[in-house]
Amino acid sequence: MAIDRDTLLAWEFPEVVQSFDHRDSILYALGLGIGSDPLDRAQLRFVYEDGLRALPTMGVILGYPGFWLSDPRTGADWKRLLHGEQDIEIVKPLPAQGRVVGRTRVVDVIDKGAGKGALVLSERTLHDKDSGDLFCRMASTTFLRGDGGFGGPSGPTKAPHPIPDRKPDLEVATPTLPQAALIYRLSGDWNPLHADPDVAKAGGFDRPILHGLCTFGIAGYAVLTGAADGDPDRLASLAVRFSAPVMPGETIVTEIWHEDDGVLAFRSRVRERGLVVLNNGRAALR
Amino acid sequence: MAIDRDTLLAWEFPEVVQSFDHRDSILYALGLGIGSDPLDRAQLRFVYEDGLRALPTMGVILGYPGFWLSDPRTGADWKRLLHGEQDIEIVKPLPAQGRVVGRTRVVDVIDKGAGKGALVLSERTLHDKDSGDLFCRMASTTFLRGDGGFGGPSGPTKAPHPIPDRKPDLEVATPTLPQAALIYRLSGDWNPLHADPDVAKAGGFDRPILHGLCTFGIAGYAVLTGAADGDPDRLASLAVRFSAPVMPGETIVTEIWHEDDGVLAFRSRVRERGLVVLNNGRAALR
Repeated sequence: MAIDRDTLLAWEFPEVVQSFDHRDSILYALGLGIGSDPLDRAQLRFVYEDGLRALPTMGVILGYPGFWLSDPRTGADWKRLLHGEQDIEIVKPLPAQGRVVGRTRVVDVIDKGAGKGALVLSERTLHDKDSGDLFCRMASTTFLRGDGGFGGPSGPTKAPHPIPDRKPDLEVATPTLPQAALIYRLSGDWNPLHADPDVAKAGGFDRPILHGLCTFGIAGYAVLTGAADGDPDRLASLAVRFSAPVMPGETIVTEIWHEDDGVLAFRSRVRERGLVVLNNGRAALR
Repeated sequence: MAIDRDTLLAWEFPEVVQSFDHRDSILYALGLGIGSDPLDRAQLRFVYEDGLRALPTMGVILGYPGFWLSDPRTGADWKRLLHGEQDIEIVKPLPAQGRVVGRTRVVDVIDKGAGKGALVLSERTLHDKDSGDLFCRMASTTFLRGDGGFGGPSGPTKAPHPIPDRKPDLEVATPTLPQAALIYRLSGDWNPLHADPDVAKAGGFDRPILHGLCTFGIAGYAVLTGAADGDPDRLASLAVRFSAPVMPGETIVTEIWHEDDGVLAFRSRVRERGLVVLNNGRAALR
């Protein structure tokens, strides 16, 4: 079965109302490996309830409509799905506990050609359920490696943020745990690709891979600590392209360049394999 | 303020009804460090929802009435509290999700003398809320280091299970994560001693220590994998005495001796300091 562009464009997502508390906010941060130095108070503010702050990237796990592309009616070959791009624009910092409503829609479906894959572009807004205030807007590109050649348009696609042709201004190294994906998935992305060795094999990997959004959060925290004094209120936006999967246990090195007006370019490599796993990163600081 | 024996003996605990699901069961196992080899299917059965099993020691986190000794009306110097002993008798294996009711009572308060401390002995039963079936009985001794000399009886106390005077039959080494206590506490024991460097200092430690019940679960899992093929149905009981705190990040080596009729003796050391942290262990297998 192939995907059908009109079916996906018309996909109806329920509004997702979600309550979250300090346990959820801490669990998200622990899933990114924060707390690895339990005496570091800059880390503790995200993993200990006294004075707890939510990480600015936490919106990506809230109001999530679930792993909808595994629904057979989508026609998608979900075992070959990868996360392609992620963008978050933060309008108002999230509290460490609250009640939010997420609204998701598909905005485009792009055909990269048979044997190459398809891109599903979706957007989600996250509002405070009680006040109605907008916390953040997120845009996400899903890469369906097995669904190219369905007869759709081949564009438009966004131009990637350029990485400067010079040495990075700073680097932040983040070791990940072998069980990082097992911890991260408790924040709501239960895709078995990240836990089940058989599903990973069917997806073409020799072991379960780390969630793209976990790498996204790790890079976001690297930007925050490296360039914004760890202050969660200062991140205004973060956008990345996922270029290769991270294996849990590897060390992620995020290279950061200062650009004009509080804008940063960044990318992340896996130290063990020298591979760029997250590319064309752009962050804006307040 | 000092503790008063009659007040503690008459302490009224509410029945605690608790629903738990696969996320909670997985989080408990991750808090013990299980999942550190994400390709090990013996570990995966406790951290991946497909075919998920609850660990036999998980009763200790369920139906828990909360950190009641921090209530000022107890008079306890809770910052100097340590877990002294723990015992679980498993009548029926816990499911990976369900609804339980916990009933707690104080059974004795022992005075070890001024400058030595007080012991509070409590018991908890855990039943299936719907069927009424008994899952397990737990007995716990809390060591109040700052509350000795309140004028209570100095006994009786239980005889510790003897450790054989020969080399152990087997050893199981379990590295812990620096953030082990931060993960473990999400299972419900939020005592800040395990997260807050200032509270740890006030308790006489130079950093937050690991929960005794985390070490208990780690030793239980060591017994399970070392002597019962990792089969969660085979553990009938587990009893330990806590002899020293573990610092998150240390490696716990559990030494195990086979005794008669499926009974095991065990103790755990911290490899880095050579110190026995859990002693006089007794496990019974089915």
